[in-house]
Amino acid sequence: MSRQTARAVEAKKVSGELFTLTYGSLVSQLLKDYENDEDVNKQLDKMGYNIGVRLIEDFLARSNVGRCQDFRETADVIAKVGFKMFLGTTPAVTNWSPAGDEFSLILESNPLTEFVELPEGHSGLSYSNVLCGALRGALEMVQMDVAVWFVQDTLKGDNITELRLKFIKRLEDAVPAGDD
Amino acid sequence: MSRQTARAVEAKKVSGELFTLTYGSLVSQLLKDYENDEDVNKQLDKMGYNIGVRLIEDFLARSNVGRCQDFRETADVIAKVGFKMFLGTTPAVTNWSPAGDEFSLILESNPLTEFVELPEGHSGLSYSNVLCGALRGALEMVQMDVAVWFVQDTLKGDNITELRLKFIKRLEDAVPAGDD
Repeated sequence: MSRQTARAVEAKKVSGELFTLTYGSLVSQLLKDYENDEDVNKQLDKMGYNIGVRLIEDFLARSNVGRCQDFRETADVIAKVGFKMFLGTTPAVTNWSPAGDEFSLILESNPLTEFVELPEGHSGLSYSNVLCGALRGALEMVQMDVAVWFVQDTLKGDNITELRLKFIKRLEDAVPAGDD
Repeated sequence: MSRQTARAVEAKKVSGELFTLTYGSLVSQLLKDYENDEDVNKQLDKMGYNIGVRLIEDFLARSNVGRCQDFRETADVIAKVGFKMFLGTTPAVTNWSPAGDEFSLILESNPLTEFVELPEGHSGLSYSNVLCGALRGALEMVQMDVAVWFVQDTLKGDNITELRLKFIKRLEDAVPAGDD
């Protein structure tokens, strides 16, 4: 795959503000296209999923991270390697469930929402829902079925932005023949 | 404006691949929404315009670039400062018109199109048209009416990607009272 050549070169970066504005254009377009916030949220999650299943390849190639031993290690890798690599920010990992199958990521800064204000009448919009989909998609590609959702969001007036991840099950390895 | 605080901090960067995929989601959505490529191109140009009129502020604050003396200086600043700052790439400035009112930017690399293939049946799509709009919008904010379009695009099988800029006229300063 031509992607191999990209792995050899230095990872390219673009301006956070350009990214924020481009993502804003995408959300605006979806708000025009769909009747209600719930449908926009679903669409953002779906787009995020498609992004996640592609980014994981880049992530594995560039991070040299191996298979995680448990969900706690996964949490650390997502926060300290994944978020750092793609969004240039490192959320805190916190609020573990007693069973160790759920945790929260607290985003001190969220590049998707800088200078963003929710448009009037869209209190049901989960503006950054693409992140949920991207995490779900990326984790599925490493055989983890994980549910991801926003618990709190500063865009909605909450004090913090909190993403919740819940481990559901380990998926069977289903790697296409000829690939590893 | 709260934007002032952002100027003081280091410019944030996000991954080029995440940006490419997010922009790809936007173009895909527009291809679903509009009947023909020409309308998608117009919409991308319009979105780019809105992005450009916002990015120029960030650009002026961070670049310390003053008013350009002529269109040749403008061309250099766009290529060496603007593209570098936002897209992490520096196009070559070339193909000047004898009157000095038109030039081309040759993009050796285009972060919008890495690993992108035009979908079947969309030969009229100007995939990266957001760039035309962004340049037009940003330049309008510094009182320059400029037309911007793609002449060649590697996505369409051309050997190079060439953006053309044509100076139309200088606009009257129309700065809102109380601002400078």
